[in-house]
Amino acid sequence: MTGEKPIFDRVGLIGLGLIGSSMAWAMKRRNIAGHIAGYARSEQTRARAMELGFLDSAHESAAACATDCDLVVLCTPLGVYRQIGEEIAPVLKSGAIVSDVGSTKVSVINALSPVMPEGIHLLPGHPVAGTENSGPDAGFETLFDDRYTILTPLSDTPTAVVDRLRAFWEACGAMVEIMDAEHHDRVLAITSHLPHLIAYTIVGTASDLENQLAREQADETDMVKTSDVIRFSAGGFRDFTRIAGSDPVMWRDVFLNNREAVLEMLGRFSEDLVALQRAVRWSDGDKLEEWFTRTRGIRRSIVEQKQAGTFIAMETGDDD
Amino acid sequence: MTGEKPIFDRVGLIGLGLIGSSMAWAMKRRNIAGHIAGYARSEQTRARAMELGFLDSAHESAAACATDCDLVVLCTPLGVYRQIGEEIAPVLKSGAIVSDVGSTKVSVINALSPVMPEGIHLLPGHPVAGTENSGPDAGFETLFDDRYTILTPLSDTPTAVVDRLRAFWEACGAMVEIMDAEHHDRVLAITSHLPHLIAYTIVGTASDLENQLAREQADETDMVKTSDVIRFSAGGFRDFTRIAGSDPVMWRDVFLNNREAVLEMLGRFSEDLVALQRAVRWSDGDKLEEWFTRTRGIRRSIVEQKQAGTFIAMETGDDD
Repeated sequence: MTGEKPIFDRVGLIGLGLIGSSMAWAMKRRNIAGHIAGYARSEQTRARAMELGFLDSAHESAAACATDCDLVVLCTPLGVYRQIGEEIAPVLKSGAIVSDVGSTKVSVINALSPVMPEGIHLLPGHPVAGTENSGPDAGFETLFDDRYTILTPLSDTPTAVVDRLRAFWEACGAMVEIMDAEHHDRVLAITSHLPHLIAYTIVGTASDLENQLAREQADETDMVKTSDVIRFSAGGFRDFTRIAGSDPVMWRDVFLNNREAVLEMLGRFSEDLVALQRAVRWSDGDKLEEWFTRTRGIRRSIVEQKQAGTFIAMETGDDD
Repeated sequence: MTGEKPIFDRVGLIGLGLIGSSMAWAMKRRNIAGHIAGYARSEQTRARAMELGFLDSAHESAAACATDCDLVVLCTPLGVYRQIGEEIAPVLKSGAIVSDVGSTKVSVINALSPVMPEGIHLLPGHPVAGTENSGPDAGFETLFDDRYTILTPLSDTPTAVVDRLRAFWEACGAMVEIMDAEHHDRVLAITSHLPHLIAYTIVGTASDLENQLAREQADETDMVKTSDVIRFSAGGFRDFTRIAGSDPVMWRDVFLNNREAVLEMLGRFSEDLVALQRAVRWSDGDKLEEWFTRTRGIRRSIVEQKQAGTFIAMETGDDD
């Protein structure tokens, strides 16, 4: 697309972690932004971003970064959105789009709507993509390719604004879906937030158990076998550890900002877990087999819809 | 190793799924077995195995397969071990080793010990390796490379027998660990069985929710958006679906055969989940962040110990 007019003349990225840096790389891959401005709280991150070369300019405040931008994207943990919104509000260019990449959407509207000036278009977004790594070195230009980015327009968002941000994300490689914020938060609560909470839980449970097993073995024999849980993690556990290796502050804020939907999904999950627990306790093999057969069908749908990730062909040694 | 004497003159594989076929390929990669005999219940599987070329002979009964073997390995679901043990007992060669690849070990000893004749060495094993795929086409020669295989000798198993089976598995590419069956069952309950039960649960929960959401949307709008859960699975859910895509009969038998340890681990997990649920409900950000930071450290240990799998470098788009 080089040579064509960029979709936005100036884009400001507030936050330069995995998502912010990947957005910059994706913009640079094609001629999506005339100028990419960036801000991160830490001087070290800003310097590293300039060194890596994914920004055209780094700024010492969110307001300086947002000045004159046609698109400003918040890429920080959700907990600081309100504060950033207040900081950038006075400098926003008339007609600018303010968006974000947060994993919850109702709370984003609640945090930013009240502080956005007249003539600014708030259009929250969520690229459903990521890795377990974080920080400016973690970004790469293909992160959003063939992944969904969800946009959640407000009732008064002009269609032209939605179309423009859709074109932006499609140029970054993504498939774009439009939905309302409440629906987003429920769907993501089950597909992302609850899986993370469960993974965080079991990895903590296993860690406690491992410490206990190590103490027991130390009592019984001369040889302390530590790290059994880690060594035998190829049996399924390591997939959970990868999820549970995600950024702690980002995820703390996700749970604080999508509490109701997460608690609802957790309630549904707990009911089902108790039912399967009962089947195990009472050796109800038919119920177990029937349940496991149904879930296998869902996995196949994901593979067919090409959302399974590249590891399908590459990976070995994952369950049994 | 071609040219050297094989470790076993004749190996019999009872069951030709992912693990059985991978063992055959691993044996063929080096000169580990003079002859590989195989048995599967289905005629189609036996024919396919011969067609793929990983067996030297296919047999129509477990007994025919086990005849004259120096090593017989059960690679079937756990539920049929006892029956197979009874079938092969009369034909086992004196001094033969009978082993297996099942995911539980106490139940294997309980099932097979009573039916093994004098002069036969029962030495249960468990390669902690696998993929979500099953059947004779799923096998590959590198499945066990750099993965642990656990052997759980009985109190009267001669050291020479353990050493020989250890050499066999090491030649197949595995790292071998010796532990008692009870310890195995507890460690695997937390690293493998509980993760599978949880993954099976949440995928079922999500499937039910998706059906409900689709119905609600059909009421509200003209457009039914099906498969939201599948389409946005890159947010974490898809890792669970991969685990929940594992063989239903095999896993039914795992839970039926390691009930006590699984229920114990489930109890520990549920306590921790309730604690985190409470932290979400009461917006206890400090507790969440502290827990998530601890689990991230465990992930790093797995990566450092090279048990993270090949997807670390390859994969994109997995959480957020």
